[in-house]
Amino acid sequence: MNPVLDDISHRRYNPLRGNWILVSPHRTKRPWQGQEEGPSKNTLPEYDPKCYLCPRNKRSGGAQNPDYQETYIFVNDFSAVKEDQVDYETETTATADKSSLLMRAEGVKGKCFVVCFSPAHNKTLADMSIKEISLVVETWKNLYKDVQQNTPFRYIQIFENKGESMGCSNPHAHCQAWTTSHLPEEPAAELKNMIEYRKKNNSCLLCDYLALELEKKERIIAENDGWLAVCPWWAFWPFETLVISKKCIKNILEIEGERDVDLFAEIISTITIKYDNLFETKFPYSMGIHQAPLRGTDEEHAANHVHFHFLPPLLRSATVKKFQVGYELLAEPQRDITPEQAARRLQALSTELYRNKLE
Amino acid sequence: MNPVLDDISHRRYNPLRGNWILVSPHRTKRPWQGQEEGPSKNTLPEYDPKCYLCPRNKRSGGAQNPDYQETYIFVNDFSAVKEDQVDYETETTATADKSSLLMRAEGVKGKCFVVCFSPAHNKTLADMSIKEISLVVETWKNLYKDVQQNTPFRYIQIFENKGESMGCSNPHAHCQAWTTSHLPEEPAAELKNMIEYRKKNNSCLLCDYLALELEKKERIIAENDGWLAVCPWWAFWPFETLVISKKCIKNILEIEGERDVDLFAEIISTITIKYDNLFETKFPYSMGIHQAPLRGTDEEHAANHVHFHFLPPLLRSATVKKFQVGYELLAEPQRDITPEQAARRLQALSTELYRNKLE
Ligand SMILES: O=P(O)(O)O[C@H]1O[C@H](CO)[C@@H](O)[C@H](O)[C@H]1O
Ligand SMILES: O=P(O)(O)O[C@H]1O[C@H](CO)[C@@H](O)[C@H](O)[C@H]1O
Repeated sequence: MNPVLDDISHRRYNPLRGNWILVSPHRTKRPWQGQEEGPSKNTLPEYDPKCYLCPRNKRSGGAQNPDYQETYIFVNDFSAVKEDQVDYETETTATADKSSLLMRAEGVKGKCFVVCFSPAHNKTLADMSIKEISLVVETWKNLYKDVQQNTPFRYIQIFENKGESMGCSNPHAHCQAWTTSHLPEEPAAELKNMIEYRKKNNSCLLCDYLALELEKKERIIAENDGWLAVCPWWAFWPFETLVISKKCIKNILEIEGERDVDLFAEIISTITIKYDNLFETKFPYSMGIHQAPLRGTDEEHAANHVHFHFLPPLLRSATVKKFQVGYELLAEPQRDITPEQAARRLQALSTELYRNKLE
Repeated sequence: MNPVLDDISHRRYNPLRGNWILVSPHRTKRPWQGQEEGPSKNTLPEYDPKCYLCPRNKRSGGAQNPDYQETYIFVNDFSAVKEDQVDYETETTATADKSSLLMRAEGVKGKCFVVCFSPAHNKTLADMSIKEISLVVETWKNLYKDVQQNTPFRYIQIFENKGESMGCSNPHAHCQAWTTSHLPEEPAAELKNMIEYRKKNNSCLLCDYLALELEKKERIIAENDGWLAVCPWWAFWPFETLVISKKCIKNILEIEGERDVDLFAEIISTITIKYDNLFETKFPYSMGIHQAPLRGTDEEHAANHVHFHFLPPLLRSATVKKFQVGYELLAEPQRDITPEQAARRLQALSTELYRNKLE
């Protein structure tokens, strides 16, 4: 990389999403007078009688959880989308009144799931063994297959909100999966760019990017035989990572066999442990898997490449996050440290969880 | 509006930004067990010796503020972009290595300003008189003219982050203005859509939208002779508002004459007071003005229409915000109440500030 980018304000282009990000490296020289917290110990109980995700407990919707031993999946009691609802017919208006252009809407059906990662109330992905995480991966695969076979929906978005600052109200580790009758904005934009790239260059965007990152070795955080984790060239969040499958697989069903599932579990474990080690805290983030639609055209399938994004808000310490507010929302995403600086810090971190050493 | 949209999950299209938003109205039926706070009194002093924005105080960069009496503008001590920096030359790489496609960057120059709204440490826009806000508007106009005449930059983004939850660390009311050598993503996307709309329909997107909202009367929050404030059809944030100039002006310099400036100040006052009254709190938000670039093509100028956005995070109470996290970041913006429901609540609120009644 041209070293001048470590010093000057510049924009970088995200060819996957199709947008620009403003990078202001010198802003890290800003003095920080705020508080810094010490390492947090794991103080949650293994079972919490008031948690609506723990085994055997009642949920707020009234249902009772089974005495589950591994992962546990159920339909969200307050789903954002539902399987059955009345249809929405666009109003037939005189073209003169322009509302057909300016006030467009369409109905959305779907189904929302919650997946508890383990019965233990106090275990995050970073605390779980590779084998335990592999069970989560298997649950995701089964869910993908199930909704593909048994629902008419077009896309499944698997995502995890971790930590209160990322809107998670229950520390019992879980993710969600929302399936919808439409392809949502983010995967749709990525897919459009991947299809166009493929047409123009006769190759896969993420395969090409993967090869470049392996060659340049400037943004790599972790790697195994199945996956590469980088702070992408175009990262927006301070310690954002993009995790790319080394094989050009289209959806998680293609992660076949115990070894491949374990490699997937291992890279998740490595990243979440490094994240927690960075500021010696339970590192908050939103994470999500992008893959081929449940049903789509051959072109959509061919252009895809399984990857997942970790979007963590912390910037300077366990208590100081990067706010994505005025300028970011109204003008352009902006970041303070370069992706290369972030990658170097994450790269250097141990893969042994700090909490385990403290105990 | 088709009343079915009050009940079913649906998506709405934002023709200004060119994106879709998922709306899940029934999600408001979710029980809420969280805390609700009582009305907050104004407890800040009028002058705080430790505030780096108060008159006569030292700033963290070392400079001392003058004993200003009205508004006060200065160059940000920790600007995200700067007027002078070395140039960035894209690396000339073999086309085979694809980095010219996948690792693109460009240098950005610019200048960042801070504008204090008043010498009083404890006055927000909602506390200020129309005359006092008019002085802020005049300051914005002077700044626009100044950077247009005396810098080579292409765009000025004026924005305010208000409240700790919107990344604001100093309650002394102020906004920022970042000028840049490029047109940032958000105004660029809007401009592209306004230009396309104008070509196709031979009219202005926001003029047409304004007329529609005035006719339908379903999303209006406030109005005067100069401005219309609505919860737009495509609002993403719970109580988001879009404020549109009734005249098709291109930039704020066209707000000429005392009366027009006062009308602008009045609509800002009305919205910020209603916001504070909604949950009887100092309502956090990010706000920004979108207008014609400082320099651009005739086509860009002609297609523009001055408007501003208020993006407030609170959803249910002074303490409960809407988190824009996992699904929103990785799949699609999602909201829980409809824009019509939000508009009805804001519309009904008094324009007398609750704090003044408490005193
Ligand atoms: O410039 P400030 O007030 O220090 O910082 C605030 O506004 C900026 C522009 O929206 C953001 O980049 C920062 O994250 C936020 O904390
Ligand atoms: O579904 P939950 O956990 O109640 O809610 C959380 O995740 C959702 C999906 O990202 C968001 O819409 C909510 O704002 C957030 O609090």
